[in-house]
Amino acid sequence: MGLSSDFLLKDKTVSNFSLAGSMAIKSLISPQATHFSYVEVTLQKPLSLMAFTLCMRVATELRGEREIILFAYRIPSHDELNVWRELDGRFSIYIGGEGVHFHIPELSSMQTQLCVTWDSSSGAAAFFINDKKSLTKIFKRGHIIRSEGRIVLGQDPDAFLGGFDVKQSFVGEILDVNLWDYVLSDTEVQDTFVRKRGNVIDWETTQLNINGEVVVVDVQL
Amino acid sequence: MGLSSDFLLKDKTVSNFSLAGSMAIKSLISPQATHFSYVEVTLQKPLSLMAFTLCMRVATELRGEREIILFAYRIPSHDELNVWRELDGRFSIYIGGEGVHFHIPELSSMQTQLCVTWDSSSGAAAFFINDKKSLTKIFKRGHIIRSEGRIVLGQDPDAFLGGFDVKQSFVGEILDVNLWDYVLSDTEVQDTFVRKRGNVIDWETTQLNINGEVVVVDVQL
Amino acid sequence: MGLSSDFLLKDKTVSNFSLAGSMAIKSLISPQATHFSYVEVTLQKPLSLMAFTLCMRVATELRGEREIILFAYRIPSHDELNVWRELDGRFSIYIGGEGVHFHIPELSSMQTQLCVTWDSSSGAAAFFINDKKSLTKIFKRGHIIRSEGRIVLGQDPDAFLGGFDVKQSFVGEILDVNLWDYVLSDTEVQDTFVRKRGNVIDWETTQLNINGEVVVVDVQL
Repeated sequence: MGLSSDFLLKDKTVSNFSLAGSMAIKSLISPQATHFSYVEVTLQKPLSLMAFTLCMRVATELRGEREIILFAYRIPSHDELNVWRELDGRFSIYIGGEGVHFHIPELSSMQTQLCVTWDSSSGAAAFFINDKKSLTKIFKRGHIIRSEGRIVLGQDPDAFLGGFDVKQSFVGEILDVNLWDYVLSDTEVQDTFVRKRGNVIDWETTQLNINGEVVVVDVQL
Repeated sequence: MGLSSDFLLKDKTVSNFSLAGSMAIKSLISPQATHFSYVEVTLQKPLSLMAFTLCMRVATELRGEREIILFAYRIPSHDELNVWRELDGRFSIYIGGEGVHFHIPELSSMQTQLCVTWDSSSGAAAFFINDKKSLTKIFKRGHIIRSEGRIVLGQDPDAFLGGFDVKQSFVGEILDVNLWDYVLSDTEVQDTFVRKRGNVIDWETTQLNINGEVVVVDVQL
Repeated sequence: MGLSSDFLLKDKTVSNFSLAGSMAIKSLISPQATHFSYVEVTLQKPLSLMAFTLCMRVATELRGEREIILFAYRIPSHDELNVWRELDGRFSIYIGGEGVHFHIPELSSMQTQLCVTWDSSSGAAAFFINDKKSLTKIFKRGHIIRSEGRIVLGQDPDAFLGGFDVKQSFVGEILDVNLWDYVLSDTEVQDTFVRKRGNVIDWETTQLNINGEVVVVDVQL
């Protein structure tokens, strides 16, 4: 599946009022499971990471009956940085094709602020769910996340940008996806809820390529 | 098991960058159950206590299927101050070889701020879980916790510094262990989450002797 | 059972140090079920109420297997104002011998701030559990709570001050019992957690008559 049917977010925004003193951000709604709906996030700089913080807000009514892809960064040969809700309810981070799993509170219809941090020098990886931090696991110490990939929300690309599986697709709402090339402090991660912007992905300014049935609405923060 | 293989924390810190305005503290990660991984906490003054407040942050994926040692202070003849998660899910404080049990919320993969207070003059003992205080129990009134012991994290020493049981070992993450020789006020205990430092163990400055597979990472608060 | 074995709280306080800038209040610990341990709360003015707010902090390890008396105000002929945790887990308010029941979150080992409000002119009665308010029920509209009674914590008096049943006794910790002769605003009720004092019972200054195995400790707030 190529990029020929892509178009830019600004053309598809369905709600675009704004209130004085507030800020509107885009929110992505995937009403149903498909093998063709996804959003590509345009990178503002090449993604070569020795550390990262990834945050998003996510809400879904999907229960524990299947895998759910939450974030996919794939280079031509393999998945380089993925975040999953697994079949058994655990969450996982895949880096360079290998995964580490966490038992953390489940997603629900209520928005969850979900962040992931990882640092190559120590291998320390952790989740944050709302204002709570998980235990830290040591994982892929010394690895460097490679550039020249593409970021996809809503589907797990088994090919560079395609090979999607409806049973792994995301159904629900994702917004405010921000990515930093370093590990924010615990306090800063908790502050991301109140409007910190990534230096690799900045959700306020990043360009989104919408495909399929994804609906974009503006949310007043 | 002696101290011959010990080495100091500073030599083993695997990540040591710092951000302006934030503070880094050491975090201890025990990736798996062993009978040989533990951390000895060097005491800054002899531990002769008529009262105490002990706080730590702890996260674990261990479920209710076995005992978990959370803190051990042993003198040559016996355990003088231990904190356990018991087989049946209750928490316990052992002082001078005797225990008192509490039904309190269970530990999880998400970090819990756990504090214990005890005062010899009244015998009042209580747990704090995050910002909640448990009921108070009367226990070991008049006892004085004896000096000349050693503090071990991650294992229960059945001998002075050895006799470890893999089935009691800690698996997960422990950090920010602080000990005071008096009972902090309820408000102060809740404030320990935001960086109060013990006068008997001060986690920021205390020297740790790392043994076995414990990984030390720096966490930016 | 008379008052001959009573003695004053100040004589029984077992821990009485104080820290600069903090405040100590008395906490009542009932280590086990008895038919003879109780605390009588001395009234600072006669209790003739057309409305009230009653607050306390309470923690218990008792599970749902039996009734638990939380507050009893009895006049010679009958119970005039009682608060119960019922056999079926519901909470109830009895006024003038009649009760109203609420399904609210259960008590636990962790301290719960529990408040009850009632107003004769409307009959509106509600519970507050920590910072949450229950639904309102209409109950005993027009009733006036009569004076010349006695307040007992820990037992349900079936006679004026006696006739206790071990199976209804309170086991655990009760503190910070305050009573007002009017209905506080919702916000004020939530503020009681941070040190508001009743105008009918003020826990800081009220005199307590301790009987049996109740232990009194000072808690630094």
